[in-house]
Formats: sequence, structure tokens, C-alpha cells
Amino acid sequence: MNPKDPALQTYFIAASIMSLKMMLQAWITVYRMFKVKGGYLHPEDIKKTGLNPNPNSNQLKPDPYVERSRAMQRNDMENIPVFLIIGLLFAMTRPALWITQILMYGYVASRLLHFYALGTAKTHDLRATFFTIGSLIVIGMCAYVLIFAIKG
Amino acid sequence: MNPKDPALQTYFIAASIMSLKMMLQAWITVYRMFKVKGGYLHPEDIKKTGLNPNPNSNQLKPDPYVERSRAMQRNDMENIPVFLIIGLLFAMTRPALWITQILMYGYVASRLLHFYALGTAKTHDLRATFFTIGSLIVIGMCAYVLIFAIKG
Amino acid sequence: MNPKDPALQTYFIAASIMSLKMMLQAWITVYRMFKVKGGYLHPEDIKKTGLNPNPNSNQLKPDPYVERSRAMQRNDMENIPVFLIIGLLFAMTRPALWITQILMYGYVASRLLHFYALGTAKTHDLRATFFTIGSLIVIGMCAYVLIFAIKG
Repeated sequence: MNPKDPALQTYFIAASIMSLKMMLQAWITVYRMFKVKGGYLHPEDIKKTGLNPNPNSNQLKPDPYVERSRAMQRNDMENIPVFLIIGLLFAMTRPALWITQILMYGYVASRLLHFYALGTAKTHDLRATFFTIGSLIVIGMCAYVLIFAIKG
Repeated sequence: MNPKDPALQTYFIAASIMSLKMMLQAWITVYRMFKVKGGYLHPEDIKKTGLNPNPNSNQLKPDPYVERSRAMQRNDMENIPVFLIIGLLFAMTRPALWITQILMYGYVASRLLHFYALGTAKTHDLRATFFTIGSLIVIGMCAYVLIFAIKG
Repeated sequence: MNPKDPALQTYFIAASIMSLKMMLQAWITVYRMFKVKGGYLHPEDIKKTGLNPNPNSNQLKPDPYVERSRAMQRNDMENIPVFLIIGLLFAMTRPALWITQILMYGYVASRLLHFYALGTAKTHDLRATFFTIGSLIVIGMCAYVLIFAIKG
């Protein structure tokens, strides 16, 4: 397996963007917790420390602004790891480059649009549209890999 | 690495089935939200849209039928991504085909039975049995990969 | 791709340790549920069975000791699957061995220290330090893989 193979190269680009996106969501949660000085999860987080000089127990209450970022991260967890693996297996089957590019960059675009729609509280229907596109791409790649492997 | 290698082929089949299973769980949640017209997560989901023509605030209350599907998906997230990776690494060590088949298809069977037991609210003890089989298979593969790599 | 390649061998060791860690977190949750005889998630878990001979409805209340283990597992889910994939892609780019070892074993160390800090309720600031080290390592590997693939 050679990362210079064009289909694999496409996968490397899509996979690293999606991985970055998922890692950055945790930092968006951190940013939001700092901004509202709350939304913390654990009792020890209201001990007085350098990062929390004036703790109070309200900081442990769920905060909608912080919780939205956590919901976005849960949505990432539900979707991105499966893409990361099935994308690799798909690329290993030596598919046509143009199909690989449409599927992988289409997936990246659908997830970034979903991120935008959920992050800015757009309507459910718009968010569901982006989710559906990404989900169908992954399901299609799963089916392709399964058929490829069964046919041997 | 050649997807036509028999151990890798077995892995491709198991991995694509498990990936499909995890993707479909999201659609089971969607199906259940449509069926009960509720169990939504975000405030914007009770805006009037084509998919939600008669919104009301009760739609944001947790619904047990919907939450069960979300719990099933969380259980998938806890288990399937690790299998997807460690299964690939295991297959790359060129294990005997029959061992690979027992472990990988055994894992798929244990997860589908766990899905059945949790989805139909069978007893904890039955569900725990299926969980344990799948978990021990993955732990065994982790230990094998670790020893293989340390021995060089 | 040859698992005997030194960078890949380093990855195999780090990946199998991180996979084991994530699998064992589920068993820590199980251990804690048995110890407090509670913290169960599903209504069917208070049916009388061999593993739960004296059920009562309080067993479905969230228990802080059990919930902490679930929070640790959620933190694993947010972080480890991305490392498992991006670590593989990073190793496939044939990086220098010493860099690979620093990044991968540094990641393993940061996650085990985070596990210790969260598991024993150390201060937020200590826990955040370990989280940050691991997160920056993964983000760095993502950026490296992305640049490597774009440069072709």
C-alpha cells in the first residue's frame, strides 16, 4: 500500500481533514467553557486553580452553549471514525480516482456543512440533508467494500 | 497489503458489516424519532418545517423508545471503532485463516446478538454474555498485536 | 505495508495499548456497577437474574462512581479512535523512527496520565495539561499527514 497511489492520496487528505475537525471540536468545547466560565463536568473542576481562580458550584450546571459543542462532538463520534476506516478499505480496493474524489470530498463537504448547520442552529431539515448525504456516502462505501471482499 | 489476502478478506467482510451496523443505528434513531414525533435534541428542532409541520415543545423531551436507540449507538461507539482498527492490524500480522475467521465472524455474531438483546430489552445477563464474548475477542486481538509487535 | 517496518512497529505497540485501555474502561464500568450494585442504564436491568438476585428501582439511578467511568470512556471515544487511524496514516508516510517514537509513546503516556488524573479526581488543570499534550500530538500528526498527501 503506497500513500502515493492517487485513491489513497485522496483518502489521506479527506481523513486528515476529518480527524482535524474532530480534534478541534474538543477545543471549541474548551473555548466555550472558558467563555461562559462554566459547563464543567466533574466536581473537582470547581476547585480553585490557576485556570479557575473564582470557582462556584453553578459552574457544574449544564450550559446550552457548551452542551451544543458536546452534542456536535458526539455526532462526530457517531460518524467520523467509521468513515476513517471504511474510507481506507475503500481506497485499498483500487477504485477509480474520480469516484474516490467525489465520495471522499463529498463526505468532507457534507460534514463541514453539517457542522455549520448544527453550530449555528439552522433548521433540522437543512441539518438532516447534510447528515443524509454523508451517511449515504459511507453506507455506499461499506456496501462496495463488502461486495468487493465477498466476490474475492 | 493486498485485500485479496484471505485473512484481510475476512477482515474486510467483518469490518464492512460492523460499519454498516453502526451507520444503520443512526437511521433507527431517525425512524424512531419520526414514529413518536419527538425525542429531538436541539431547540431549533421544534421550528415548523416540512419534516415537522406541527411542532410543540414536548418534542424536546427525552423519549425512552428513541433514547434506547441512542444508547445502542453509544454502545457501538464504545466497541466497534476499536474492533475496526485492531482487526486490521491483526489481519496484517498474517494470522492463520481459521483463527481469523473464528475471531472476526465470532465478533460480528456477538455484536448482532447484543444488538438483538438490547434492542428487544432481553435480560441484562443475556446482553452481558454477548458483550463479554465480543469484548474478549477484541482484547485477545489487542494482546496478540501487542506481543507480535514487541517481539518484532 | 510491512508490520516489521520500525515506524509501523512503533505504531502497532502504541495502537494496541490504546485499544486495550479503551476496552478495559468498559470493564472498569462493569466492576463499579457490581461494586455499588447500581448505576444501571436500562429498565430491564432491574429484572431478577443470576447477576442481580435482589433488584430494586434505585439501581437505575445514576451513581457518581459509575458515571465517572462512563465519562472516562466518553473521553476515550473522543480521542483514541482518531489517534488509531491518524497514527496508522502517519506511520505509512515513513517518518523518522525517533520522531514516531516520541509522538506515539508520548501520546500513550499523556493518555495514561489523563486516565490517572480523571480516575482519581485530580485538579482540572493537571488533567487539562495531559489532555493538551495528547491532543496536540494528534493534531500535529493530522497536519503532517495532510501536508504529506497534498504535496503528493
